Amino acid sequence: MVDSDSARLPYFNASPAEVRRLCRAGESGPVTAGMAAGYIQANIVMLPASLADAFHEFCLRNPKPCPLVGMSRPGDYRLPSLGADLDLRTDLPLYRVWRDGNMVAETGDIRDQWRDDLVTFALGCSFSFENALTACDVPMRHLQLGRGVPVYRTNIACTPVGPFAGPVVVSMRPFRSHHAIRAVQISSLIPLAHGAPIQIGFPEEIGIADIDSPDYGDPTEVADDELPVFWACGVTPQAVLAASKPEFAITHAPGAMLVTDMPIEGYEDLVASHRGRII
Amino acid sequence: MVDSDSARLPYFNASPAEVRRLCRAGESGPVTAGMAAGYIQANIVMLPASLADAFHEFCLRNPKPCPLVGMSRPGDYRLPSLGADLDLRTDLPLYRVWRDGNMVAETGDIRDQWRDDLVTFALGCSFSFENALTACDVPMRHLQLGRGVPVYRTNIACTPVGPFAGPVVVSMRPFRSHHAIRAVQISSLIPLAHGAPIQIGFPEEIGIADIDSPDYGDPTEVADDELPVFWACGVTPQAVLAASKPEFAITHAPGAMLVTDMPIEGYEDLVASHRGRII
Repeated sequence: MVDSDSARLPYFNASPAEVRRLCRAGESGPVTAGMAAGYIQANIVMLPASLADAFHEFCLRNPKPCPLVGMSRPGDYRLPSLGADLDLRTDLPLYRVWRDGNMVAETGDIRDQWRDDLVTFALGCSFSFENALTACDVPMRHLQLGRGVPVYRTNIACTPVGPFAGPVVVSMRPFRSHHAIRAVQISSLIPLAHGAPIQIGFPEEIGIADIDSPDYGDPTEVADDELPVFWACGVTPQAVLAASKPEFAITHAPGAMLVTDMPIEGYEDLVASHRGRII
Repeated sequence: MVDSDSARLPYFNASPAEVRRLCRAGESGPVTAGMAAGYIQANIVMLPASLADAFHEFCLRNPKPCPLVGMSRPGDYRLPSLGADLDLRTDLPLYRVWRDGNMVAETGDIRDQWRDDLVTFALGCSFSFENALTACDVPMRHLQLGRGVPVYRTNIACTPVGPFAGPVVVSMRPFRSHHAIRAVQISSLIPLAHGAPIQIGFPEEIGIADIDSPDYGDPTEVADDELPVFWACGVTPQAVLAASKPEFAITHAPGAMLVTDMPIEGYEDLVASHRGRII
Protein backbone atom coordinates (compact mmCIF):
# COMPACT_ATOMS: atom_id res chain seq x y z
CA MET A 1 0.00 0.00 0.00
CA VAL A 2 3.02 2.30 0.33
CA ASP A 3 2.94 3.38 -3.30
CA SER A 4 -0.80 3.86 -3.51
CA ASP A 5 -2.52 7.20 -3.22
CA SER A 6 -4.36 6.09 -0.11
CA ALA A 7 -1.07 5.83 1.82
CA ARG A 8 -0.72 9.59 1.53
CA LEU A 9 -4.10 10.20 3.16
CA PRO A 10 -3.80 10.15 6.96
CA TYR A 11 -7.51 9.60 7.65
CA PHE A 12 -8.27 7.26 4.73
CA ASN A 13 -8.83 4.34 7.07
CA ALA A 14 -10.18 6.37 9.98
CA SER A 15 -13.65 5.56 11.26
CA PRO A 16 -16.46 8.04 10.54
CA ALA A 17 -16.86 8.65 14.29
CA GLU A 18 -13.17 9.51 14.53
CA VAL A 19 -13.47 11.98 11.64
CA ARG A 20 -16.53 13.58 13.22
CA ARG A 21 -14.65 13.95 16.51
CA LEU A 22 -11.87 15.76 14.62
CA CYS A 23 -14.44 18.01 12.95
CA ARG A 24 -16.12 18.78 16.26
CA ALA A 25 -12.73 19.67 17.75
CA GLY A 26 -11.84 21.87 14.77
CA GLU A 27 -8.92 19.59 13.92
CA SER A 28 -10.06 17.99 10.66
CA GLY A 29 -9.05 20.70 8.26
CA PRO A 30 -11.73 22.19 6.00
CA VAL A 31 -12.15 19.32 3.51
CA THR A 32 -13.20 15.71 4.18
CA ALA A 33 -11.93 14.30 0.85
CA GLY A 34 -9.91 11.12 1.33
CA MET A 35 -11.29 10.39 4.79
CA ALA A 36 -13.12 7.32 6.17
CA ALA A 37 -13.00 5.17 3.05
CA GLY A 38 -15.89 2.75 2.78
CA TYR A 39 -18.50 5.12 4.19
CA ILE A 40 -21.00 7.52 2.70
CA GLN A 41 -20.14 11.19 2.98
CA ALA A 42 -22.98 13.65 2.55
CA ASN A 43 -23.82 17.10 1.29
CA ILE A 44 -25.93 18.89 3.89
CA VAL A 45 -28.94 21.15 3.29
CA MET A 46 -30.89 22.57 6.25
CA LEU A 47 -34.15 24.31 5.42
CA PRO A 48 -37.18 25.65 7.29
CA ALA A 49 -39.86 22.98 7.61
CA SER A 50 -42.15 24.98 5.31
CA LEU A 51 -39.82 24.13 2.39
CA ALA A 52 -38.95 20.60 3.45
CA ASP A 53 -41.69 18.71 1.63
CA ALA A 54 -40.86 20.33 -1.69
CA PHE A 55 -37.12 19.80 -1.27
CA HIS A 56 -37.68 16.19 -0.21
CA GLU A 57 -39.71 15.57 -3.34
CA PHE A 58 -37.06 17.32 -5.44
CA CYS A 59 -34.42 14.91 -4.14
CA LEU A 60 -36.58 11.86 -4.79
CA ARG A 61 -37.21 12.98 -8.36
CA ASN A 62 -33.55 13.75 -9.05
CA PRO A 63 -31.72 10.84 -7.44
CA LYS A 64 -28.56 11.03 -9.56
CA PRO A 65 -27.52 14.53 -8.43
CA CYS A 66 -29.43 14.32 -5.10
CA PRO A 67 -29.16 10.81 -3.64
CA LEU A 68 -31.01 11.14 -0.33
CA VAL A 69 -29.26 9.25 2.46
CA GLY A 70 -30.96 10.85 5.45
CA MET A 71 -33.55 13.43 6.54
CA SER A 72 -34.11 14.73 10.06
CA ARG A 73 -37.31 15.56 11.89
CA PRO A 74 -37.97 19.33 12.14
CA GLY A 75 -35.75 20.92 14.77
CA ASP A 76 -33.87 17.71 15.46
CA TYR A 77 -30.10 18.03 15.17
CA ARG A 78 -29.66 14.31 15.71
CA LEU A 79 -29.79 11.84 12.82
CA PRO A 80 -29.05 8.47 14.41
CA SER A 81 -29.38 6.53 11.13
CA LEU A 82 -26.17 8.30 10.03
CA GLY A 83 -24.31 8.19 13.36
CA ALA A 84 -25.38 7.43 16.93
CA ASP A 85 -23.29 10.29 18.34
CA LEU A 86 -23.95 12.66 15.47
CA ASP A 87 -24.69 16.33 16.21
CA LEU A 88 -25.59 18.04 12.95
CA ARG A 89 -24.68 21.45 14.43
CA THR A 90 -21.01 20.70 15.09
CA ASP A 91 -19.89 17.62 13.18
CA LEU A 92 -19.04 19.16 9.82
CA PRO A 93 -15.73 21.00 9.39
CA LEU A 94 -17.39 24.13 8.03
CA TYR A 95 -20.91 25.43 7.40
CA ARG A 96 -22.39 28.22 5.35
CA VAL A 97 -25.39 30.20 6.58
CA TRP A 98 -27.68 31.73 3.95
CA ARG A 99 -30.40 34.41 4.12
CA ASP A 100 -32.52 35.17 1.06
CA GLY A 101 -29.96 33.42 -1.15
CA ASN A 102 -26.96 35.34 0.19
CA MET A 103 -24.24 33.76 2.29
CA VAL A 104 -24.10 35.64 5.58
CA ALA A 105 -21.66 33.51 7.58
CA GLU A 106 -19.15 30.69 7.31
CA THR A 107 -18.57 28.89 10.60
CA GLY A 108 -17.50 25.57 12.11
CA ASP A 109 -20.33 25.53 14.66
CA ILE A 110 -23.96 26.46 14.01
CA ARG A 111 -25.37 26.00 17.51
CA ASP A 112 -25.97 29.77 17.64
CA GLN A 113 -27.81 29.66 14.32
CA TRP A 114 -29.98 26.65 15.05
CA ARG A 115 -33.75 26.99 14.64
CA ASP A 116 -36.43 24.66 15.87
CA ASP A 117 -38.02 24.46 12.42
CA LEU A 118 -34.92 23.31 10.53
CA VAL A 119 -35.06 20.05 8.58
CA THR A 120 -31.70 18.57 7.57
CA PHE A 121 -31.19 16.69 4.32
CA ALA A 122 -28.10 14.54 3.80
CA LEU A 123 -27.30 13.82 0.13
CA GLY A 124 -24.57 11.38 -0.91
CA CYS A 125 -21.28 12.86 -2.10
CA SER A 126 -18.67 11.92 -4.70
CA PHE A 127 -15.97 11.74 -2.01
CA SER A 128 -17.32 8.26 -1.24
CA PHE A 129 -16.81 6.91 -4.75
CA GLU A 130 -13.49 8.75 -5.01
CA ASN A 131 -12.32 6.88 -1.92
CA ALA A 132 -13.43 3.61 -3.53
CA LEU A 133 -11.53 4.49 -6.72
CA THR A 134 -8.45 5.31 -4.65
CA ALA A 135 -8.76 2.00 -2.80
CA CYS A 136 -8.89 0.27 -6.21
CA ASP A 137 -5.73 2.11 -7.35
CA VAL A 138 -7.58 4.26 -9.88
CA PRO A 139 -5.77 7.62 -9.72
CA MET A 140 -7.51 10.99 -9.99
CA ARG A 141 -5.53 13.96 -11.22
CA HIS A 142 -7.30 16.64 -9.19
CA LEU A 143 -6.50 14.75 -5.99
CA GLN A 144 -2.89 14.19 -7.00
CA LEU A 145 -2.55 17.91 -7.69
CA GLY A 146 -4.39 18.87 -4.51
CA ARG A 147 -7.02 20.78 -6.47
CA GLY A 148 -10.79 20.86 -6.49
CA VAL A 149 -12.57 18.73 -9.08
CA PRO A 150 -13.82 20.71 -12.12
CA VAL A 151 -17.60 21.19 -12.00
CA TYR A 152 -19.91 22.32 -14.82
CA ARG A 153 -23.52 23.32 -15.31
CA THR A 154 -25.13 21.17 -18.02
CA ASN A 155 -28.03 21.50 -20.45
CA ILE A 156 -29.87 18.72 -18.57
CA ALA A 157 -32.72 20.10 -16.47
CA CYS A 158 -33.52 18.67 -13.06
CA THR A 159 -37.14 17.66 -12.63
CA PRO A 160 -38.47 20.81 -10.91
CA VAL A 161 -40.54 20.72 -7.71
CA GLY A 162 -42.08 23.89 -6.27
CA PRO A 163 -39.40 26.58 -5.95
CA PHE A 164 -36.60 24.11 -6.69
CA ALA A 165 -35.38 23.96 -10.29
CA GLY A 166 -32.20 24.27 -12.29
CA PRO A 167 -29.67 22.38 -14.37
CA VAL A 168 -27.94 19.18 -13.37
CA VAL A 169 -24.38 20.10 -12.37
CA VAL A 170 -21.62 17.57 -13.06
CA SER A 171 -18.06 16.90 -11.96
CA MET A 172 -15.39 15.69 -14.41
CA ARG A 173 -12.47 13.33 -13.93
CA PRO A 174 -10.15 12.38 -16.81
CA PHE A 175 -9.06 8.75 -17.08
CA ARG A 176 -7.08 6.46 -19.31
CA SER A 177 -9.37 3.90 -20.94
CA HIS A 178 -8.79 1.07 -18.47
CA HIS A 179 -9.34 3.36 -15.51
CA ALA A 180 -12.49 4.79 -17.11
CA ILE A 181 -13.86 1.24 -17.32
CA ARG A 182 -12.98 0.66 -13.67
CA ALA A 183 -14.54 4.00 -12.71
CA VAL A 184 -17.83 3.05 -14.40
CA GLN A 185 -17.82 -0.35 -12.71
CA ILE A 186 -17.03 0.98 -9.25
CA SER A 187 -19.28 4.05 -9.24
CA SER A 188 -22.18 2.01 -10.64
CA LEU A 189 -22.07 -0.01 -7.43
CA ILE A 190 -22.41 3.09 -5.21
CA PRO A 191 -25.75 4.68 -6.17
CA LEU A 192 -25.76 6.71 -2.94
CA ALA A 193 -22.66 8.54 -4.20
CA HIS A 194 -24.22 9.54 -7.57
CA GLY A 195 -23.79 6.08 -9.12
CA ALA A 196 -22.57 5.64 -12.69
CA PRO A 197 -21.29 8.53 -14.78
CA ILE A 198 -23.82 10.22 -17.05
CA GLN A 199 -21.45 11.06 -19.91
CA ILE A 200 -18.10 9.90 -21.25
CA GLY A 201 -16.13 11.59 -23.96
CA PHE A 202 -18.52 14.17 -25.43
CA PRO A 203 -18.88 17.19 -23.11
CA GLU A 204 -20.63 19.21 -25.83
CA GLU A 205 -23.55 16.75 -25.71
CA ILE A 206 -24.40 17.96 -22.21
CA GLY A 207 -23.85 21.63 -22.97
CA ILE A 208 -20.24 22.01 -21.85
CA ALA A 209 -18.64 24.28 -24.44
CA ASP A 210 -15.19 24.67 -22.87
CA ILE A 211 -13.91 21.88 -20.68
CA ASP A 212 -11.02 24.10 -19.55
CA SER A 213 -13.42 26.62 -17.99
CA PRO A 214 -15.40 24.89 -15.25
CA ASP A 215 -18.24 26.80 -13.60
CA TYR A 216 -17.06 25.70 -10.14
CA GLY A 217 -13.89 24.08 -8.82
CA ASP A 218 -10.54 24.06 -10.61
CA PRO A 219 -9.66 23.24 -14.24
CA THR A 220 -8.13 19.79 -14.81
CA GLU A 221 -6.21 18.88 -17.95
CA VAL A 222 -7.60 16.06 -20.11
CA ALA A 223 -4.62 14.43 -21.83
CA ASP A 224 -4.80 13.14 -25.41
CA ASP A 225 -4.97 9.55 -24.19
CA GLU A 226 -7.71 10.21 -21.65
CA LEU A 227 -11.50 10.26 -21.67
CA PRO A 228 -13.34 12.94 -19.69
CA VAL A 229 -15.88 11.18 -17.47
CA PHE A 230 -18.77 13.17 -15.99
CA TRP A 231 -20.83 12.40 -12.90
CA ALA A 232 -23.91 14.12 -11.51
CA CYS A 233 -22.65 16.27 -8.66
CA GLY A 234 -23.74 17.46 -5.24
CA VAL A 235 -23.26 21.04 -6.36
CA THR A 236 -26.61 20.56 -8.14
CA PRO A 237 -28.74 20.94 -4.99
CA GLN A 238 -26.50 23.78 -3.77
CA ALA A 239 -27.07 25.70 -7.01
CA VAL A 240 -30.78 24.92 -7.01
CA LEU A 241 -31.03 26.07 -3.42
CA ALA A 242 -29.17 29.32 -4.07
CA ALA A 243 -31.40 30.09 -7.06
CA SER A 244 -34.57 29.53 -5.00
CA LYS A 245 -33.42 32.12 -2.39
CA PRO A 246 -35.03 30.62 0.72
CA GLU A 247 -35.34 33.08 3.60
CA PHE A 248 -32.99 30.90 5.64
CA ALA A 249 -30.76 27.91 4.97
CA ILE A 250 -27.59 26.29 6.23
CA THR A 251 -25.36 24.08 4.08
CA HIS A 252 -21.94 22.49 4.28
CA ALA A 253 -19.11 24.64 2.92
CA PRO A 254 -17.58 23.25 -0.31
CA GLY A 255 -15.71 20.02 0.46
CA ALA A 256 -16.66 20.09 4.15
CA MET A 257 -18.95 17.09 4.17
CA LEU A 258 -20.76 15.13 6.83
CA VAL A 259 -18.94 11.82 7.26
CA THR A 260 -21.66 9.29 8.10
CA ASP A 261 -21.60 5.83 9.64
CA MET A 262 -23.51 4.47 6.63
CA PRO A 263 -21.26 1.90 4.97
CA ILE A 264 -20.94 1.58 1.22
CA GLU A 265 -22.85 -1.64 0.59
CA GLY A 266 -20.50 -4.52 -0.18
CA TYR A 267 -17.46 -2.26 0.01
CA GLU A 268 -14.84 -4.89 0.77
CA ASP A 269 -15.96 -7.19 -2.04
CA LEU A 270 -16.18 -4.19 -4.35
CA VAL A 271 -12.57 -3.23 -3.71
CA ALA A 272 -11.31 -6.81 -3.85
CA SER A 273 -12.96 -7.45 -7.21
CA HIS A 274 -12.02 -4.16 -8.92
CA ARG A 275 -8.32 -3.87 -8.24
CA GLY A 276 -5.61 -4.81 -10.69
CA ARG A 277 -5.54 -5.29 -14.43
CA ILE A 278 -8.74 -5.48 -16.42
CA ILE A 279 -7.22 -8.19 -18.63
CA MET B 1 -41.59 -4.52 -26.73
CA VAL B 2 -42.82 -4.04 -30.30
CA ASP B 3 -40.34 -1.29 -31.10
CA SER B 4 -37.34 -2.96 -29.50
CA ASP B 5 -34.75 -4.92 -31.39
CA SER B 6 -35.66 -8.08 -29.51
CA ALA B 7 -39.12 -8.10 -31.13
CA ARG B 8 -37.45 -8.77 -34.47
CA LEU B 9 -35.70 -11.88 -33.17
CA PRO B 10 -38.00 -14.91 -33.34
CA TYR B 11 -36.04 -17.06 -30.88
CA PHE B 12 -35.01 -14.29 -28.46
CA ASN B 13 -37.24 -15.68 -25.74
CA ALA B 14 -36.93 -19.33 -26.75
CA SER B 15 -35.57 -21.79 -24.21
CA PRO B 16 -32.07 -23.19 -24.74
CA ALA B 17 -33.54 -26.69 -25.10
CA GLU B 18 -35.85 -25.43 -27.84
CA VAL B 19 -32.92 -23.84 -29.70
CA ARG B 20 -30.90 -27.05 -29.40
CA ARG B 21 -33.84 -29.03 -30.79
CA LEU B 22 -33.92 -26.68 -33.78
CA CYS B 23 -30.16 -27.10 -34.24
CA ARG B 24 -30.43 -30.88 -34.02
CA ALA B 25 -33.19 -30.82 -36.64
CA GLY B 26 -31.18 -28.52 -38.92
CA GLU B 27 -33.82 -25.81 -38.58
CA SER B 28 -32.00 -23.16 -36.56
CA GLY B 29 -30.14 -21.43 -39.36
CA PRO B 30 -26.35 -21.20 -39.11
CA VAL B 31 -26.05 -18.49 -36.44
CA THR B 32 -27.34 -18.51 -32.85
CA ALA B 33 -27.07 -14.73 -32.30
CA GLY B 34 -30.22 -13.29 -30.74
CA MET B 35 -31.48 -16.63 -29.44
CA ALA B 36 -32.36 -17.77 -25.90
CA ALA B 37 -31.75 -14.47 -24.11
CA GLY B 38 -30.70 -14.89 -20.49
CA TYR B 39 -28.55 -17.96 -21.09
CA ILE B 40 -24.87 -18.55 -21.71
CA GLN B 41 -23.92 -19.43 -25.27
CA ALA B 42 -20.56 -21.08 -25.79
CA ASN B 43 -17.69 -21.39 -28.21
CA ILE B 44 -16.79 -25.06 -28.60
CA VAL B 45 -13.31 -26.59 -28.85
CA MET B 46 -12.89 -30.38 -29.03
CA LEU B 47 -9.35 -31.70 -28.70
CA PRO B 48 -7.63 -35.05 -28.21
CA ALA B 49 -7.17 -35.80 -24.52
CA SER B 50 -3.39 -35.49 -24.91
CA LEU B 51 -3.83 -31.73 -25.42
CA ALA B 52 -6.65 -31.23 -22.95
CA ASP B 53 -4.63 -30.42 -19.84
CA ALA B 54 -2.65 -27.70 -21.61
CA PHE B 55 -5.74 -26.18 -23.20
CA HIS B 56 -7.60 -26.31 -19.89
CA GLU B 57 -4.76 -24.43 -18.22
CA PHE B 58 -4.67 -21.95 -21.09
CA CYS B 59 -8.35 -21.13 -20.52
CA LEU B 60 -7.88 -20.72 -16.78
CA ARG B 61 -4.99 -18.33 -17.32
CA ASN B 62 -6.82 -16.27 -19.93
CA PRO B 63 -10.33 -15.95 -18.52
CA LYS B 64 -11.30 -12.76 -20.36
CA PRO B 65 -11.01 -14.22 -23.88
CA CYS B 66 -11.58 -17.84 -22.72
CA PRO B 67 -14.20 -17.94 -19.94
CA LEU B 68 -14.54 -21.67 -19.27
CA VAL B 69 -18.16 -22.66 -18.69
CA GLY B 70 -17.84 -26.42 -19.15
CA MET B 71 -15.44 -29.27 -19.92
CA SER B 72 -16.35 -32.86 -20.75
CA ARG B 73 -14.71 -36.10 -19.74
CA PRO B 74 -12.65 -37.69 -22.54
CA GLY B 75 -14.88 -39.31 -25.13
CA ASP B 76 -18.07 -38.12 -23.46
CA TYR B 77 -20.39 -36.23 -25.78
CA ARG B 78 -22.72 -35.41 -22.92
CA LEU B 79 -22.20 -32.36 -20.72
CA PRO B 80 -25.15 -32.38 -18.32
CA SER B 81 -24.04 -29.23 -16.47
CA LEU B 82 -24.86 -27.33 -19.68
CA GLY B 83 -28.02 -29.23 -20.65
CA ALA B 84 -29.57 -32.51 -19.49
CA ASP B 85 -30.48 -33.53 -23.04
CA LEU B 86 -27.35 -32.11 -24.63
CA ASP B 87 -25.53 -34.10 -27.32
CA LEU B 88 -22.34 -32.27 -28.21
CA ARG B 89 -22.21 -34.07 -31.59
CA THR B 90 -25.48 -32.71 -32.96
CA ASP B 91 -26.66 -29.71 -30.96
CA LEU B 92 -24.71 -26.93 -32.66
CA PRO B 93 -25.94 -25.55 -35.99
CA LEU B 94 -22.60 -26.07 -37.70
CA TYR B 95 -19.19 -27.55 -36.86
CA ARG B 96 -15.74 -27.30 -38.38
CA VAL B 97 -13.39 -30.29 -38.42
CA TRP B 98 -9.65 -29.58 -38.41
CA ARG B 99 -6.61 -31.76 -39.18
CA ASP B 100 -3.11 -30.38 -38.61
CA GLY B 101 -4.50 -26.84 -38.52
CA ASN B 102 -6.43 -27.13 -41.78
CA MET B 103 -10.21 -27.17 -41.96
CA VAL B 104 -11.23 -30.40 -43.66
CA ALA B 105 -15.01 -30.36 -43.24
CA GLU B 106 -17.93 -28.16 -42.24
CA THR B 107 -20.96 -30.13 -41.09
CA GLY B 108 -24.05 -29.95 -38.91
CA ASP B 109 -23.48 -33.40 -37.37
CA ILE B 110 -20.16 -34.80 -36.16
CA ARG B 111 -21.28 -38.26 -35.07
CA ASP B 112 -19.19 -39.73 -37.92
CA GLN B 113 -16.15 -37.75 -36.77
CA TRP B 114 -16.43 -38.53 -33.08
CA ARG B 115 -13.41 -40.01 -31.31
CA ASP B 116 -13.28 -41.62 -27.92
CA ASP B 117 -10.39 -39.41 -26.82
CA LEU B 118 -12.06 -36.05 -27.51
CA VAL B 119 -12.41 -33.56 -24.68
CA THR B 120 -14.90 -30.74 -25.25
CA PHE B 121 -14.36 -27.23 -23.91
CA ALA B 122 -17.24 -24.75 -23.77
CA LEU B 123 -16.15 -21.10 -23.54
CA GLY B 124 -18.63 -18.27 -22.97
CA CYS B 125 -19.60 -16.17 -25.98
CA SER B 126 -20.44 -12.50 -26.55
CA PHE B 127 -23.88 -13.46 -27.91
CA SER B 128 -24.96 -13.76 -24.27
CA PHE B 129 -24.05 -10.18 -23.36
CA GLU B 130 -25.37 -8.95 -26.70
CA ASN B 131 -28.74 -10.47 -25.83
CA ALA B 132 -28.60 -8.71 -22.45
CA LEU B 133 -27.79 -5.40 -24.17
CA THR B 134 -30.69 -5.94 -26.55
CA ALA B 135 -33.01 -6.71 -23.64
CA CYS B 136 -31.89 -3.40 -22.06
CA ASP B 137 -32.62 -1.51 -25.31
CA VAL B 138 -28.95 -0.86 -26.06
CA PRO B 139 -28.75 -1.10 -29.86
CA MET B 140 -25.82 -2.62 -31.74
CA ARG B 141 -25.16 -1.51 -35.29
CA HIS B 142 -23.79 -4.79 -36.61
CA LEU B 143 -26.94 -6.58 -35.52
CA GLN B 144 -29.19 -3.89 -36.98
CA LEU B 145 -27.33 -4.21 -40.29
CA GLY B 146 -27.33 -8.00 -40.15
CA ARG B 147 -23.53 -8.13 -40.29
CA GLY B 148 -20.84 -9.87 -38.31
CA VAL B 149 -19.19 -7.93 -35.51
CA PRO B 150 -15.74 -6.51 -36.45
CA VAL B 151 -12.94 -8.50 -34.80
CA TYR B 152 -9.27 -7.53 -34.44
CA ARG B 153 -6.00 -9.07 -33.32
CA THR B 154 -4.41 -6.94 -30.58
CA ASN B 155 -0.91 -6.33 -29.25
CA ILE B 156 -1.93 -7.98 -25.95
CA ALA B 157 -0.44 -11.46 -25.60
CA CYS B 158 -2.39 -14.29 -24.02
CA THR B 159 -0.55 -16.03 -21.21
CA PRO B 160 0.91 -18.99 -23.16
CA VAL B 161 0.58 -22.61 -22.01
CA GLY B 162 2.34 -25.44 -23.85
CA PRO B 163 1.54 -25.22 -27.56
CA PHE B 164 -1.16 -22.60 -27.02
CA ALA B 165 -0.14 -18.97 -27.49
CA GLY B 166 -1.14 -15.90 -29.44
CA PRO B 167 -2.66 -12.45 -29.19
CA VAL B 168 -5.89 -11.58 -27.47
CA VAL B 169 -8.49 -11.03 -30.19
CA VAL B 170 -11.23 -8.45 -29.56
CA SER B 171 -14.62 -7.53 -30.95
CA MET B 172 -15.72 -3.90 -31.34
CA ARG B 173 -19.13 -2.29 -30.95
CA PRO B 174 -19.62 1.48 -31.36
CA PHE B 175 -21.93 3.24 -28.90
CA ARG B 176 -23.16 6.69 -28.01
CA SER B 177 -21.86 7.70 -24.59
CA HIS B 178 -24.93 6.70 -22.57
CA HIS B 179 -25.08 3.32 -24.24
CA ALA B 180 -21.35 2.80 -23.71
CA ILE B 181 -21.91 3.34 -19.99
CA ARG B 182 -24.79 0.85 -20.04
CA ALA B 183 -22.67 -1.63 -22.02
CA VAL B 184 -19.88 -1.46 -19.41
CA GLN B 185 -22.38 -1.92 -16.58
CA ILE B 186 -24.20 -4.83 -18.19
CA SER B 187 -21.22 -6.75 -19.54
CA SER B 188 -19.36 -6.35 -16.24
CA LEU B 189 -22.12 -8.42 -14.65
CA ILE B 190 -21.64 -11.31 -17.11
CA PRO B 191 -18.06 -12.52 -16.61
CA LEU B 192 -18.86 -15.80 -18.37
CA ALA B 193 -19.49 -13.81 -21.56
CA HIS B 194 -16.11 -12.00 -21.49
CA GLY B 195 -17.18 -9.51 -18.80
CA ALA B 196 -16.30 -5.83 -19.04
CA PRO B 197 -14.72 -4.30 -22.12
CA ILE B 198 -10.93 -4.04 -22.13
CA GLN B 199 -10.64 -0.78 -24.06
CA ILE B 200 -12.80 2.23 -24.88
CA GLY B 201 -11.93 4.94 -27.33
CA PHE B 202 -8.25 4.34 -28.16
CA PRO B 203 -7.87 1.37 -30.54
CA GLU B 204 -4.23 2.27 -31.24
CA GLU B 205 -3.39 1.50 -27.60
CA ILE B 206 -4.13 -2.17 -28.21
CA GLY B 207 -2.41 -2.30 -31.58
CA ILE B 208 -5.37 -1.69 -33.88
CA ALA B 209 -4.02 0.59 -36.61
CA ASP B 210 -7.11 0.75 -38.83
CA ILE B 211 -10.49 0.31 -37.22
CA ASP B 212 -12.09 0.06 -40.67
CA SER B 213 -10.09 -3.07 -41.51
CA PRO B 214 -11.00 -5.81 -39.04
CA ASP B 215 -9.02 -9.05 -39.12
CA TYR B 216 -12.23 -11.09 -38.91
CA GLY B 217 -15.93 -10.26 -39.29
CA ASP B 218 -17.30 -7.21 -41.06
CA PRO B 219 -16.33 -3.52 -40.78
CA THR B 220 -18.69 -1.35 -38.71
CA GLU B 221 -18.76 2.42 -38.93
CA VAL B 222 -17.92 4.39 -35.78
CA ALA B 223 -19.83 7.69 -36.00
CA ASP B 224 -18.35 10.97 -34.75
CA ASP B 225 -20.56 10.89 -31.66
CA GLU B 226 -19.71 7.29 -30.78
CA LEU B 227 -17.02 5.54 -28.77
CA PRO B 228 -15.56 2.27 -30.05
CA VAL B 229 -15.82 -0.28 -27.24
CA PHE B 230 -13.67 -3.43 -27.36
CA TRP B 231 -14.26 -6.76 -25.65
CA ALA B 232 -12.07 -9.84 -25.44
CA CYS B 233 -13.50 -12.26 -27.98
CA GLY B 234 -14.04 -15.98 -28.45
CA VAL B 235 -12.10 -15.83 -31.70
CA THR B 236 -9.01 -15.75 -29.45
CA PRO B 237 -9.05 -19.49 -28.66
CA GLN B 238 -9.96 -20.28 -32.27
CA ALA B 239 -6.92 -18.38 -33.53
CA VAL B 240 -4.68 -19.87 -30.85
CA LEU B 241 -5.93 -23.33 -31.73
CA ALA B 242 -5.37 -22.85 -35.47
CA ALA B 243 -1.83 -21.60 -34.85
CA SER B 244 -0.99 -24.62 -32.69
CA LYS B 245 -2.01 -27.03 -35.53
CA PRO B 246 -3.27 -29.95 -33.45
CA GLU B 247 -3.47 -33.22 -35.39
CA PHE B 248 -7.23 -33.21 -34.86
CA ALA B 249 -9.82 -30.77 -33.55
CA ILE B 250 -13.47 -29.90 -33.94
CA THR B 251 -14.88 -26.43 -33.27
CA HIS B 252 -18.13 -24.58 -33.80
CA ALA B 253 -18.39 -22.73 -37.12
CA PRO B 254 -18.35 -18.92 -36.73
CA GLY B 255 -21.57 -17.77 -35.06
CA ALA B 256 -22.87 -21.34 -34.65
CA MET B 257 -22.67 -21.55 -30.88
CA LEU B 258 -23.75 -24.07 -28.30
CA VAL B 259 -26.79 -22.65 -26.52
CA THR B 260 -26.52 -23.90 -22.94
CA ASP B 261 -29.00 -24.18 -20.09
CA MET B 262 -26.66 -22.16 -17.87
CA PRO B 263 -28.53 -18.99 -16.89
CA ILE B 264 -26.86 -15.60 -16.74
CA GLU B 265 -26.68 -15.04 -13.00
CA GLY B 266 -29.24 -12.50 -11.84
CA TYR B 267 -30.43 -11.89 -15.39
CA GLU B 268 -33.90 -10.57 -14.62
CA ASP B 269 -32.65 -8.08 -12.03
CA LEU B 270 -29.85 -7.10 -14.40
CA VAL B 271 -32.28 -6.23 -17.17
CA ALA B 272 -34.75 -4.51 -14.84
CA SER B 273 -32.06 -2.27 -13.36
CA HIS B 274 -30.27 -1.33 -16.59
CA ARG B 275 -33.10 -0.27 -18.87
CA GLY B 276 -34.10 3.31 -19.49
CA ARG B 277 -32.36 6.63 -19.06
CA ILE B 278 -29.11 6.87 -17.13
CA ILE B 279 -30.24 10.19 -15.65
